[in-house]
Amino acid sequence: MFTVTRPIEEASLARWAQKVKRSQLQEILFAAAKPGIISFAMGLPAPELFPVEGLMKASRDVLANDPRALQYGPPFQPLKSQIVRIMAERKVSCCEEQILITTGAQQGLSLLVRLLLEPGGEILTEQMVYTGFHQVFEPYEPLVLSVPTDAGTGIDVEAVASLLSKGARPAFIYAISSGHNPLAVSLTHAKRLRLVELARQYRVPVIEDDPYGFLNYEEVALPPLKAYEEKWVFYVGSFSKILTPGLRVGWLVVPESLITKLSAVKEASDIDTNTFTQRLISRFLEREDLDKHLSRLRREYRVRRDAMAQALRAHFPATAKWAIPDDGVFFWVELPPGVDTLALLVDALERERVAFIPGQAFSIDASNKATNCMRLNFSHSNPELIMDGIARLGHMLRSCSK
Amino acid sequence: MFTVTRPIEEASLARWAQKVKRSQLQEILFAAAKPGIISFAMGLPAPELFPVEGLMKASRDVLANDPRALQYGPPFQPLKSQIVRIMAERKVSCCEEQILITTGAQQGLSLLVRLLLEPGGEILTEQMVYTGFHQVFEPYEPLVLSVPTDAGTGIDVEAVASLLSKGARPAFIYAISSGHNPLAVSLTHAKRLRLVELARQYRVPVIEDDPYGFLNYEEVALPPLKAYEEKWVFYVGSFSKILTPGLRVGWLVVPESLITKLSAVKEASDIDTNTFTQRLISRFLEREDLDKHLSRLRREYRVRRDAMAQALRAHFPATAKWAIPDDGVFFWVELPPGVDTLALLVDALERERVAFIPGQAFSIDASNKATNCMRLNFSHSNPELIMDGIARLGHMLRSCSK
Repeated sequence: MFTVTRPIEEASLARWAQKVKRSQLQEILFAAAKPGIISFAMGLPAPELFPVEGLMKASRDVLANDPRALQYGPPFQPLKSQIVRIMAERKVSCCEEQILITTGAQQGLSLLVRLLLEPGGEILTEQMVYTGFHQVFEPYEPLVLSVPTDAGTGIDVEAVASLLSKGARPAFIYAISSGHNPLAVSLTHAKRLRLVELARQYRVPVIEDDPYGFLNYEEVALPPLKAYEEKWVFYVGSFSKILTPGLRVGWLVVPESLITKLSAVKEASDIDTNTFTQRLISRFLEREDLDKHLSRLRREYRVRRDAMAQALRAHFPATAKWAIPDDGVFFWVELPPGVDTLALLVDALERERVAFIPGQAFSIDASNKATNCMRLNFSHSNPELIMDGIARLGHMLRSCSK
Repeated sequence: MFTVTRPIEEASLARWAQKVKRSQLQEILFAAAKPGIISFAMGLPAPELFPVEGLMKASRDVLANDPRALQYGPPFQPLKSQIVRIMAERKVSCCEEQILITTGAQQGLSLLVRLLLEPGGEILTEQMVYTGFHQVFEPYEPLVLSVPTDAGTGIDVEAVASLLSKGARPAFIYAISSGHNPLAVSLTHAKRLRLVELARQYRVPVIEDDPYGFLNYEEVALPPLKAYEEKWVFYVGSFSKILTPGLRVGWLVVPESLITKLSAVKEASDIDTNTFTQRLISRFLEREDLDKHLSRLRREYRVRRDAMAQALRAHFPATAKWAIPDDGVFFWVELPPGVDTLALLVDALERERVAFIPGQAFSIDASNKATNCMRLNFSHSNPELIMDGIARLGHMLRSCSK
């Protein structure tokens, strides 16, 4: 007789789900989520820069005047128009029909992957990427093609070209074009051109994950890939880093032909994006000056970035390597090969009460574990805390290397 | 040479996604979403019963006093405690560690299916079910085992028993225990007992989708399946029908051992449930009297239900069959076999400006298309509109049958 083998005491899960567990790193950071820790770990915006006053006014307006704000409802058309105008500031020309409003950028990413990737399919990505992207693709158990990233210029586009020319046809190429998470680099103009040329030539879409593109600190900010190539770049945008993450509103800009299908996948996921917060953000954008708010964010975050650069120079060993980021909210620091940043984190939390993310958390490729690297966030802590926290980490690193 | 065959002009999509399109019904309803239509189509709550005043106060409180309300953040613990108390009112005994807060019930359903169902796996469901559930399972292209539903007592539990005894081991059984969507029936006590007994015996979890269980109109309301069986029932709950759908907050009650995995799948989907609306609802529940609000909803919806029953008796042909629902927001009406309710909808919209959902939209099984049935919602329209709209539909039906 055939015996069905399944757990006796628990419901049987999908195969990939059996592997899902909280990582060692998550355990450490979870245990460390206590007051008094200086945290450079998460990519959090500064809560003291949230435009609370403006959001309170907008909330009152919406609830008092728009009964549909609490009902199920289709995507809020005025917000789409506002997103079109926001994209135009970044030199992306698009129309309302190409916008899908999502429950944050994470949902946008998740919907695109769902639409494009067959279980067991193939994807192309950098060796080090945002952990939320790992979580998105892992259930599909794809073949992962990966390429290195140059610390100064971004994703190795010739390695991409080489894979494609040898016949690789991934469901998509995943790219974080500005203020890379975790590598802090922004793609150069030449590489942007080359990457979209490859996408066009081989008819492989690029998913451009761009939560940080609006947070640029230098005179010349490059437009997103979407401005270089309309059709083969699928853009993922978000209000999380430019307004607040707690309202969970983001957007996609994709070819109009994909919107019906994406809307169906979106509906299956959570029906509508929060109708209230869509209207709340729309009303805020109508009443307040987003450009002014963005200027303030860029000014304040630039001060924090510079404070971190100064502190790293002052306190980190001379063997540590980093670049000052043009965009985004992170530094990526490479320590000498012997240093194990996961072990360092345990000590840093216990002895110095400072948190960061060890490089290996982002690694997709066993050949590049970045065990001697760390990601440091500079948007969440004020300059004093940054100076203090980096000094403490530097102290530890110097005492280790003695 | 090997030639890759893929669309020349468009990105290649996952196989299942190629089939996704807006249905004929969606096209019709989309075209009909105009002012002046009396709509019995969607399962919308009555916006005039939303507790706007209380939500405005709660919103002001939260934004003025809780800076974390706009940041990324872990699930809001006080809301979990409040959900535990709400469940206790339904005789479900659970603890905070068994609660997962979700972006509405739809996300809860979608996460559970993702966790439990292997692509190409097997599921067990009724022949007629909520269209949002179709959308959730379709990407997995499962083998769908289906059983009939008795109009008076609910899902045919002996058909479930027969499938299981013959060796079927679905990833889960999907059940809507109270105020079934679309069939309007609530499971009897005896069938609840039998269904959870089967789940226990065969170790197959039941996903209990319960958005309507709080909307009961008779003296004795049965507790959800989760109160009958703690371990093998995974409960999906929602604030959409008892507070407002626009805030997109729902919850799961599942064995604690599943929470870590579900949290990871949730994080991959949209990181956090809107931190602001979680706190908004929590503050509302703290300040206001939910029981009083629910009593009001039950009172008002009972009036609407009775108005619809009266109108159906007065205006529908004697050959039409329906039962008065004990719970929920729908009537299910069966017309004589020759009537095609999809064709009828087109006429109803054009000539009478009344909308409903034809039965076939809910059909999972080619052997039971319910082409002569319709689902009518009674929560969204006031009694006058209900009388008017049903009279118009009745007029059409009588003139058809002449």
